Amino acid sequence: MNIFKFQLLRKSGLSRIGKIQTAHGSILTPAFMPVGTCGTVKAMMPESVALTGADIILGNTYHLMLRPTSERISRFGGLHRFMNWPGPILTDSGGFQVMSLAKIRTITENGVIFQSHIDGSNHTLTPELSVKIQHNLNSDITMSFDECTEFPVSEKIANVSMHLSMRWAKRSHSAFVKRLGYGIFGIVQGSIYPDLRKESIEILRNINFDGYAIGGLAVGEGQEEMFRILSIITPSLPEDQPRYLMGVGTPSDIVGCVQRGIDMFDCVIPTRSGRTGQAFTRYGTVNIRNARHQNDSRPLDDACNCPACRNYSRGYLHHLTRSKEILGLMLMTWHNLQYYQDLMSDLREAIIKDRLINYVTNFYNLQTFGDIEQL
Amino acid sequence: MNIFKFQLLRKSGLSRIGKIQTAHGSILTPAFMPVGTCGTVKAMMPESVALTGADIILGNTYHLMLRPTSERISRFGGLHRFMNWPGPILTDSGGFQVMSLAKIRTITENGVIFQSHIDGSNHTLTPELSVKIQHNLNSDITMSFDECTEFPVSEKIANVSMHLSMRWAKRSHSAFVKRLGYGIFGIVQGSIYPDLRKESIEILRNINFDGYAIGGLAVGEGQEEMFRILSIITPSLPEDQPRYLMGVGTPSDIVGCVQRGIDMFDCVIPTRSGRTGQAFTRYGTVNIRNARHQNDSRPLDDACNCPACRNYSRGYLHHLTRSKEILGLMLMTWHNLQYYQDLMSDLREAIIKDRLINYVTNFYNLQTFGDIEQL
Repeated sequence: MNIFKFQLLRKSGLSRIGKIQTAHGSILTPAFMPVGTCGTVKAMMPESVALTGADIILGNTYHLMLRPTSERISRFGGLHRFMNWPGPILTDSGGFQVMSLAKIRTITENGVIFQSHIDGSNHTLTPELSVKIQHNLNSDITMSFDECTEFPVSEKIANVSMHLSMRWAKRSHSAFVKRLGYGIFGIVQGSIYPDLRKESIEILRNINFDGYAIGGLAVGEGQEEMFRILSIITPSLPEDQPRYLMGVGTPSDIVGCVQRGIDMFDCVIPTRSGRTGQAFTRYGTVNIRNARHQNDSRPLDDACNCPACRNYSRGYLHHLTRSKEILGLMLMTWHNLQYYQDLMSDLREAIIKDRLINYVTNFYNLQTFGDIEQL
Repeated sequence: MNIFKFQLLRKSGLSRIGKIQTAHGSILTPAFMPVGTCGTVKAMMPESVALTGADIILGNTYHLMLRPTSERISRFGGLHRFMNWPGPILTDSGGFQVMSLAKIRTITENGVIFQSHIDGSNHTLTPELSVKIQHNLNSDITMSFDECTEFPVSEKIANVSMHLSMRWAKRSHSAFVKRLGYGIFGIVQGSIYPDLRKESIEILRNINFDGYAIGGLAVGEGQEEMFRILSIITPSLPEDQPRYLMGVGTPSDIVGCVQRGIDMFDCVIPTRSGRTGQAFTRYGTVNIRNARHQNDSRPLDDACNCPACRNYSRGYLHHLTRSKEILGLMLMTWHNLQYYQDLMSDLREAIIKDRLINYVTNFYNLQTFGDIEQL
C-alpha cells in the first residue's frame, strides 16, 4: 500500500509540478478534479472520465450523506467500488453545500443543523461526523469541515467565521482516522483580508495537515481580486505540500492560478456547461445551440481528440442539443472534460519546459480570438 | 459495393436464419433493430450500440424530416455519417408517427397533411416525399408509405384503409430510386382480417418489393391475436425475402414471432424501459427503482456481459435511477439493448441447432420464475 505523500518535482517561477501518492494511485499536479456530486460524474462513464486524463475525481459529502448515505456506500466497499472509479477520490466536507443547497440552517459551535433539499428531513453535520462520513466513503483525501464565509463580508464577521472554521479544522484533524495512503487537508479561510488569511494559515500549519486548500474564493469577488488574494496566500503555504483552490474555475482562472502556485482544482463548470450546450475551445467558448452551427460539418475543435470532436460535426451536436437528446449531454460533457484535462497537461508541460509565460500569453491571445468563422 | 439481397441460410420449423446484405454491411436474422428516433439511439454512443451486437438500427422519417430535416442530413453525407453509425439503417416511412404524434391530420388520396408536434408548422407527407426523404437520409432499407389502420376497426374500414396503403405502396415503389445495396419493403395491412391480409400480400407481391413488413399489429389486439394473425400471414409471404414485424415488441413477443417465421423487429421498449428504470433479465423484468434493491450488491443479471452488469451493483443502479442521474439512463439502456441482442443471438443459435422448441420452453419457464430473491 502506498503512503500518502506529495513530491514537488519541479518549480518554474511560482508554478509547480508535483505528484500526490494515495491509496488508490497517484495524481500529477497541477490537476483538475471532475466533480462527481452524487457518485457519478454526470453523463460520463467512469472509464471515459479516465480516458480524458483525469487522475482524481471529487465526491460531495453533502449529497452522498443524504442519498444513498455513507453507511450504505460503506457496505458496498466504499465510493470507489460503488461507482466503479478505481482511482483517487477527494471528498469535500459538506460545509459549502449545506450553505448553498439545504433549506434551513442553524450554525452553532458544534456544527450545522439543516433540512435536506431532497425530502426536508433534519440533519446535523459536525466536524466529527463530516470526517466519519468521508471515512465511510473511503475518500483518499478528506477535507476538514469549515464554514464557507459569505461574500462580501466585513472583516469583523470574516474574523469570527474564520476562527470557527479553525476550531472545526482542529476537531476534523482529531477525528481523522490515520490510514496508509489517506490524507486530510485543512482549508484556509479569511475572505479578502490578508491578515486573516495569514492567521488562518498559521493555525492550520500548527495542526499539521497533509495539504492545504483555499476556501472562500471564487464566491463573487472577481478574478482580479482572487488573483490578488492568492498572491498573498501562496507564499505562506508550505512548499512541500499540495495546494488546492476549491471550486475554481474557468480555463482563464485556472491558468492564472497555476501561475500563482496552485496545484489542484475542482469545478462543475465543464460538466454543467456541457449540459447547457456550452463548449470550451482554444478560441474561447462556443454555444452549440446557436443557429450558426446547424449546417457546420466541422468539429467543435479540430485540435481536440475527444469522441465529440473526432466523430461528430458541430451540426450534429447542434441537432442533439436542440432536440434535448441525452447523447448531446454525453458528448458535450466529454469534450469539456477533455478540454480541461488537455489544458492541465499543457500547463504541466509548459512548467516542465520553463516556458509557462509564453504559454499563458498564447493562451490568452487564442481565447480572445473568438470562434472560427461561420461557414 | 454490395448488392441488396437476402439469403435464407437455414430453416427449422417455421423459423429461419438469414442474412441481409446492404450497402453498409450485412444483417444476421432474426434481427432486432434498436430505434434511433432523432438520429441517436437515446442515451447510447453508437459504438456502444454496435458492441451490444446490433447489426442495424432504425431511424424515424417523421422526426428527422421535421428536425434537422432530411435535406440537412443529406448535406452532411446522409444519416450514417451524420450520426456516426457506419452499419445498415432502416427508416420507417413516417406514416405511423404522423398518426400518433402530429397534432392535426387530414388524410387524402394524395397523402397526409399534418402539423408538427414540435412547432405547429404545416407539412404534407406523400408516398413520393416519404421515399425521397428516406433517399436523402441514405437509408439502406426504405419503407413504403402506408396508413397504419387503427384498432379496433370494422372489416369495411380496414378494407378501405388497406387499399389506400396498397395504392401508396405502388407509388412508393415507383418513387424509389434503385441503387446497388439499397432496398425497399412493402407493408402488409388488413388489421385482424385474414382475407384482407392475404389480399394485401398478393398486391404487394405483384409490385415486387425487396422485403415484406407487417404493419397494423401490436396496436392493442393482444399477443394471442397477434400470433394468430401472424400464423395466417407468414405462409403467404415469399420464403426467399425478409419479413419484418414493425414495432414489436416484448421479449416474449419476439420469441413467439420468431417461432412463427419473422426475421426482423424494432421496438422502443428496451430503450424507453431503460429510461424509466425497468430492466429485462432471464427471470423477467426488474424495476430497479424498487427499495428492495438499495442494499443489493449483486448485478442486475449475473449472466449478462454488459457494463451495467459487469461493473455495477443493483444498489448503485437503484441509487442512480432514484437520483435521476444521466448515467442511470445510460447503463439501464445499455443493459436492455444487450439483453435484446443476446436474446436474438440465442434464438439464432437455437434455430441453427434445431432446438428452438426446447429454448422457448426454457425461456418461458425462466421468465415466469421471477426475479432473484431479495438479499
